[in-house]
Amino acid sequence: MSRLLNDFKAYLSKMQQYEHVTTLLFWDMKTKAPKQGQAAHIEALTHFSAENFAMSTSEALGNMLDQLAAPEEYKALDDTWKFIISRMKRDFDRNRRIPADVYEAFVRAQAESGTAWEDAKRADDFSIFAPHLKKMIDMQKEITGYKNPGKEVYEAMLDEYEEGMDSVTIDRLFQELKRELIPLVQKIAEKQQPEDPRFHEYCDPDAQKKVQWMLLDYIGFRRDSGAVDETEHPFTISFSSKDVRVTNHYYEHEPLSSIFSAIHEGGHAIFDQNVNPAYDKTVAGSCGYMGIHESQSRFYENILGRNKNFWVPIYDKLGELLPQFKEISLDEFYREINHVKNSFIRTEADELTYCFHIILRYEMEQAIFRDHVPVEELPALWNQKMKEYLQITPKNDREGILQDVHWSDASFGYFPSYLLGSIYDGMYLEALEQELGSVDELLKAGRISEITKWLNEKIHWYGNTRKPKEVIEAVCGKEVSAEPLIRYFKKKYTEIYGL
Amino acid sequence: MSRLLNDFKAYLSKMQQYEHVTTLLFWDMKTKAPKQGQAAHIEALTHFSAENFAMSTSEALGNMLDQLAAPEEYKALDDTWKFIISRMKRDFDRNRRIPADVYEAFVRAQAESGTAWEDAKRADDFSIFAPHLKKMIDMQKEITGYKNPGKEVYEAMLDEYEEGMDSVTIDRLFQELKRELIPLVQKIAEKQQPEDPRFHEYCDPDAQKKVQWMLLDYIGFRRDSGAVDETEHPFTISFSSKDVRVTNHYYEHEPLSSIFSAIHEGGHAIFDQNVNPAYDKTVAGSCGYMGIHESQSRFYENILGRNKNFWVPIYDKLGELLPQFKEISLDEFYREINHVKNSFIRTEADELTYCFHIILRYEMEQAIFRDHVPVEELPALWNQKMKEYLQITPKNDREGILQDVHWSDASFGYFPSYLLGSIYDGMYLEALEQELGSVDELLKAGRISEITKWLNEKIHWYGNTRKPKEVIEAVCGKEVSAEPLIRYFKKKYTEIYGL
Repeated sequence: MSRLLNDFKAYLSKMQQYEHVTTLLFWDMKTKAPKQGQAAHIEALTHFSAENFAMSTSEALGNMLDQLAAPEEYKALDDTWKFIISRMKRDFDRNRRIPADVYEAFVRAQAESGTAWEDAKRADDFSIFAPHLKKMIDMQKEITGYKNPGKEVYEAMLDEYEEGMDSVTIDRLFQELKRELIPLVQKIAEKQQPEDPRFHEYCDPDAQKKVQWMLLDYIGFRRDSGAVDETEHPFTISFSSKDVRVTNHYYEHEPLSSIFSAIHEGGHAIFDQNVNPAYDKTVAGSCGYMGIHESQSRFYENILGRNKNFWVPIYDKLGELLPQFKEISLDEFYREINHVKNSFIRTEADELTYCFHIILRYEMEQAIFRDHVPVEELPALWNQKMKEYLQITPKNDREGILQDVHWSDASFGYFPSYLLGSIYDGMYLEALEQELGSVDELLKAGRISEITKWLNEKIHWYGNTRKPKEVIEAVCGKEVSAEPLIRYFKKKYTEIYGL
Repeated sequence: MSRLLNDFKAYLSKMQQYEHVTTLLFWDMKTKAPKQGQAAHIEALTHFSAENFAMSTSEALGNMLDQLAAPEEYKALDDTWKFIISRMKRDFDRNRRIPADVYEAFVRAQAESGTAWEDAKRADDFSIFAPHLKKMIDMQKEITGYKNPGKEVYEAMLDEYEEGMDSVTIDRLFQELKRELIPLVQKIAEKQQPEDPRFHEYCDPDAQKKVQWMLLDYIGFRRDSGAVDETEHPFTISFSSKDVRVTNHYYEHEPLSSIFSAIHEGGHAIFDQNVNPAYDKTVAGSCGYMGIHESQSRFYENILGRNKNFWVPIYDKLGELLPQFKEISLDEFYREINHVKNSFIRTEADELTYCFHIILRYEMEQAIFRDHVPVEELPALWNQKMKEYLQITPKNDREGILQDVHWSDASFGYFPSYLLGSIYDGMYLEALEQELGSVDELLKAGRISEITKWLNEKIHWYGNTRKPKEVIEAVCGKEVSAEPLIRYFKKKYTEIYGL
């Protein structure tokens, strides 16, 4: 190993310590730190993010990257380090254009905005969050501008989460979905089934947590490399493939919410736990393409978790842990978890109307960044679009614009990834069945580990080293298309609703 | 404020960030980080401890302290900063004698030793822990030698935890206890009551956690400045008065264990939450005198928590949360929580025989550091002393020498503080009753908050700024003596056992 590469690795290792503790500070703020302790955590987070930022934009790093990227040195690297050097050089060239004080102020504002969003949601008061949201919009615009000079700002934000999936492609895919799914949703609406109150009975949060562990074990989450905690909004966070943590929220009258969040976050976590460990703590590790990442969480949650056969081997166990499910047959359970209904909360929506939750947010983001709609008008615009797509109006902002965490830390451009994930899932399902046979049969036989293994080998192992279009090409051998997802939806709901 | 003081505060603030994240890394390792994630935490802990150590021993800091301690600057400081400067200068002069590589190796070894101790305890295999223990002994000897040249090493260790309480004083107090308590324990042994199996029935850990919260609320722990989690061995950890965390261990068949650990750690936490907030994040904050700190945890646990009247206002609530206690009368409960029996586990011992658990450990430490008994011989020596003082022999090392966490991170000299804490408690109780009247009456009337307020004002507020003998003098107006504790024991057990 060249002396240069050695020095570079030592430099990376120090940066990694900063990333390690900022990850931990974030985790602890969300899971454990008491209200009065938040400020000190924000202070530490700001300090170490700034130190990390200084190292990640230093001349010393720039020089090392320039030298390592020069042909003589570069060709001596193995593939992993080739990827790391070229990715870091690209990011370095982007990030060094951000002034340090702007970045530091952004990190601090992000943390404060997160706390304000939680307060606003708790109090159902958008005005608490509005000034922070405005700040997030302005700061993210400014930062995106520094990083991508000359690029239209929302296009650059989309690229940040799902490189190569530009708004022309997304528009094409989403239009295709709208065209095919609006009639499907209408047909289903004619067959509306009544609410079943048995799914909203009191359910002990401690027991829900036990169900979460049962599900995580079942789908292949490794306990020795993971942890679980409770937060307002479920998420997954990774230190490396060896320490991947998921959270959940146990609503006392909505056990299905924590059940499907458990499977969803479990899908993210299984992805991160199964990346090539040689990539740990480098940019080659945990996949930064959000559509690809969401495709895994949504594959577990929807393609597997909302398939009746997924539950065949474990439905009795569910009843042991949550006795109210003993009174509910698997058929009734299956209908309920695929009950199509126009509802307010994205994370609790059925697979089908979920598409419109995302299309709404994608259009809201276009309104913010392309039409410059002021922050104060956003709740009304949100409600208007809910009415347009789902024919319902939120009673308050908590079940409207305040429901999601994403905008509170300026993750604009993230939402479309969820639906891209589902679109990819339609394609993966087709490829998987061609290779392993019927998913229904595998699940019914309790052979879910074979599906996990297939995903591990085809997708997870590569971590961040393949771009979305490369993943789709490698796994499915064709270009991205919404057709398989549409076929899957039509088949599934035709059966369930007898259309 | 002088420019010098300003620079000094900025320097402290950076050091504080390192302390903040090392505290958090430690907390997370114990409560949440999975097995495979421990190594990365140890690496980060080592890194940031070394950075902190470098700052705390730098020439720059030494120069600032020298200048601030010079008469002209010093006399311009307020009392808080006078304390901070003189304490930091003392510690600086001690610590700068430790070579950086020795310290870094020590921190790393401490973390590894902690993990080894947990493994050893789980496997009941002292040989897993032995090499780490030997390393801890040798390294702590070396470090103590650097810090206190010319001072006998165990004397210096005692001073580390309870400055001014030298082994001559401790010997005097402990001898007094032995003389008076051995006959008392013998008299009680003649009236031995049988085990009551109702206290060892299965008890849901989740319900035990609810009881812990009920107790913490009751004694005055502030939720907005605190948190709770589960660990192998209960402990309290503080970031500042605004973020104080306690842990517990919920044994399925030993609800009394988590109940009294909850009160014990709650006492530590109430101390830390009520230190003058102007002292936050400085050496004036959380009290570093372990006897003084333990006096508060043990005051809540024993003087209050094992008093029948403590339970009068909340015994029904306990029964609601843990239904098995509905079948047990308060009188039976009171006898059980004061059931004197010669047993193996220090943290579960009754108040009275507890004294001998500490005296044993104090003598073990003298054997290690004064008689140089080899590590391999320690389990046998432990068992021999158990036999001598309590007439019982541990079946295995898990209920013998492996039971406590303290030696795993080289906290030698800590144990005597527990018993010093009880000795102080006897004195506080006397002073408190002179000022507020009968503790029995206050507790029975649910006026525990008045007791907490008295302790807040007399002890907690001062944090680390008073040495143990100064605290005793200020609160009790006399020198430390074991007599009040002995009187308290004699009165209590004479009543309970009808001696």
